[in-house]
Amino acid sequence: MDLKSELTRMAIRAREASRSLACLSRGVKNRALKSMAAALRSRAPVIMSANKKDIARVKQKPLSASFIERLTLDKKRIEDMARSLEEIAVLADPVGEVIKAWRRPNGLWIHKVRVPIGVVGIIYESRPNVTSDCVGLCFKSGNSVILRGGSESLRTNIAIYEILKGALKKFDIPEGVVNLVTTSNRKAIDWLLQLSDYIDLVMPRGGEGLIRRVVERSKIPVIKHYKGICHVYVDVGADLNMAEKICFNAKVQRPGVCNAMESMLVHKDVAARFLAGMGAKFKQAGVQIRGCPVTRRIIKYALPVTEKDYHTEYLDLILSVKVVESLQEAIAHINHYGTHHSDSIVTENYEHARMFLNSVDSACVYVNASTRFTDGNQFGLGAEIGISTDKLHARGPMALEELTTYKYMVFGNGQIRT
Amino acid sequence: MDLKSELTRMAIRAREASRSLACLSRGVKNRALKSMAAALRSRAPVIMSANKKDIARVKQKPLSASFIERLTLDKKRIEDMARSLEEIAVLADPVGEVIKAWRRPNGLWIHKVRVPIGVVGIIYESRPNVTSDCVGLCFKSGNSVILRGGSESLRTNIAIYEILKGALKKFDIPEGVVNLVTTSNRKAIDWLLQLSDYIDLVMPRGGEGLIRRVVERSKIPVIKHYKGICHVYVDVGADLNMAEKICFNAKVQRPGVCNAMESMLVHKDVAARFLAGMGAKFKQAGVQIRGCPVTRRIIKYALPVTEKDYHTEYLDLILSVKVVESLQEAIAHINHYGTHHSDSIVTENYEHARMFLNSVDSACVYVNASTRFTDGNQFGLGAEIGISTDKLHARGPMALEELTTYKYMVFGNGQIRT
Repeated sequence: MDLKSELTRMAIRAREASRSLACLSRGVKNRALKSMAAALRSRAPVIMSANKKDIARVKQKPLSASFIERLTLDKKRIEDMARSLEEIAVLADPVGEVIKAWRRPNGLWIHKVRVPIGVVGIIYESRPNVTSDCVGLCFKSGNSVILRGGSESLRTNIAIYEILKGALKKFDIPEGVVNLVTTSNRKAIDWLLQLSDYIDLVMPRGGEGLIRRVVERSKIPVIKHYKGICHVYVDVGADLNMAEKICFNAKVQRPGVCNAMESMLVHKDVAARFLAGMGAKFKQAGVQIRGCPVTRRIIKYALPVTEKDYHTEYLDLILSVKVVESLQEAIAHINHYGTHHSDSIVTENYEHARMFLNSVDSACVYVNASTRFTDGNQFGLGAEIGISTDKLHARGPMALEELTTYKYMVFGNGQIRT
Repeated sequence: MDLKSELTRMAIRAREASRSLACLSRGVKNRALKSMAAALRSRAPVIMSANKKDIARVKQKPLSASFIERLTLDKKRIEDMARSLEEIAVLADPVGEVIKAWRRPNGLWIHKVRVPIGVVGIIYESRPNVTSDCVGLCFKSGNSVILRGGSESLRTNIAIYEILKGALKKFDIPEGVVNLVTTSNRKAIDWLLQLSDYIDLVMPRGGEGLIRRVVERSKIPVIKHYKGICHVYVDVGADLNMAEKICFNAKVQRPGVCNAMESMLVHKDVAARFLAGMGAKFKQAGVQIRGCPVTRRIIKYALPVTEKDYHTEYLDLILSVKVVESLQEAIAHINHYGTHHSDSIVTENYEHARMFLNSVDSACVYVNASTRFTDGNQFGLGAEIGISTDKLHARGPMALEELTTYKYMVFGNGQIRT
């Protein structure tokens, strides 16, 4: 069978399976999740042996040590994967929630009810733990899933996928609820993106190139998990001690993630006082500063910043710094250069806080807190499947609820329209 | 200036204007809507004169009488447009609603707040009243709008657009909140669909060709208002008198709309009794029946149905009819041939009603009511901008709330992540 027919058949199977999955009871779903976790634990050696083969192949290529580190699964990481599935099992099931219900004057009773989306495609290039996390979250929210991981982790992904599918067998759940594309032919992505009759949503998780490719070619709705150029703005009325802690945390605590600060804006009236101390602290932590001319007069070791810096997600111990004339300039800068992910103001001025929250067009806007809190767990939503930088359907952290849609159930007793 | 730069400038202007519009008070928005309504009324002759020119041009082409009828604006239709804007003014403003708010153990206070989407593009080919309706709904929900209407109604659309824009001038609202693409060059649509940096959402409203073209080319998220192949299933336990009224209403009351019934399914055990009377009633109303073999044995005038019929949205007094073996067959038929728009079961059996509601994968599922109720006004949502046949972001009738997204506002007092 050719690739196109094979993928179409997989998608049709996923669609059909999604119909039974949508009606599956919470009890069965949760038991199946726990059983998947147990299977990952007991078959950890199988996963590690597949993973070793992937790593051996990758080592022949000129890939970075950090890439290999991300690809590697040891016993602890597999235990984390299993525990994640158990955590998903105890989260509340969003399916069936009556979001709203009301009665019309003609007696029609309208219920807006949360239901699974149907079939979700996930195209990713990152760590193999994504495989089991995505299966867990999609399964719990009642969606069939089609996974397409990176070719470097193909053997590991196949091992994880087979184990999870095996665990489902005991529960009389159709096989099509979980699917993995096992070819490393890149054409497979292009074909998948045409199957809008059977796949309801595609989420690309990975670098800018992958995301652009998916958006460019997809006929299926896409939710992007795009880069985060996050800002902290230190306002004229800020508690500079608090500002220093927040900026340091947002940049240094974990620089390689999308909710880390990439650009710091400082009001001109506090620049001299704030940047002197802050610059010393950053220097100590090994942060490279790229600053505007005013910044460079205060932080001597700062390199000159370029327009390109303001557009860059470093994911590293590098920070662009700009001294601004006003709150308005800070807001305009963030709306122009930011990626509408997470941005924070440090201020003691009530009206400034209000204006920042209203005017900054980002998924998460903060007052007096680190941008690092943009995360499903930190928000208290439970596990997350990613952070949407789109505005439609889901914005910011995406957890179980964001993997659902709704339908209107309308109860009548013979109503007709006149 | 070339077309591409012109459209890009328009979109940038719309984006900038959307920032002020998002912060505009409800009072000003409502007064501006009333002022737009008044302007349409007082300048009705200008619109009618432009409309006459459009019609004169169209009459030279081989277009149907119903097309010309839809294009024509008389005094009454302009009055209806004005009244719609006034009705939108009195609807509740969704912007600023706190959807949820909670406090985290670390003291962070998280608010999920409804905000405008930003810039909405609408590509339509239908009646010119869409121009003012879309301006009203987008404006009220705080979104800038870019309109691209059909070339046949270009002069009429320009007249309406200029009048609405003129009415906004008094309110110190930036011009960019309302935009009309005034070229009839079809390339304009393709360029618009590339501008994902400035336009957040595109809604195509029109025939299948237009919608496919938009989905195919858009880098901007699309919400489709696609066709409605709606079913009524008459169950074995149905009140056949009620079933007759519902089916008649769903087919005949207004056959040219997307929530009209296109296909009727009847359980075999009631087929003989039900179809005899129903067939006579449909015959009297001039409905052409295309039936399965069992149907044709009962309704003698029925033509044979083909596979293609089950996939067809007639929008006319034509109906496909199939006798089914079971509820399960009805559900499978609807999920296979339907367009996930609106489907109804007529039954007195509680468990069958429950199964139909859970298993039919449509935006609106009904028990004992006509599918014709799928409509923003009938649902009590106020005016609607369309009926989404997609599952993401909005499903079914789309009113003001569906023209918004949300952001998380997070209030801290120095929280950092450990």
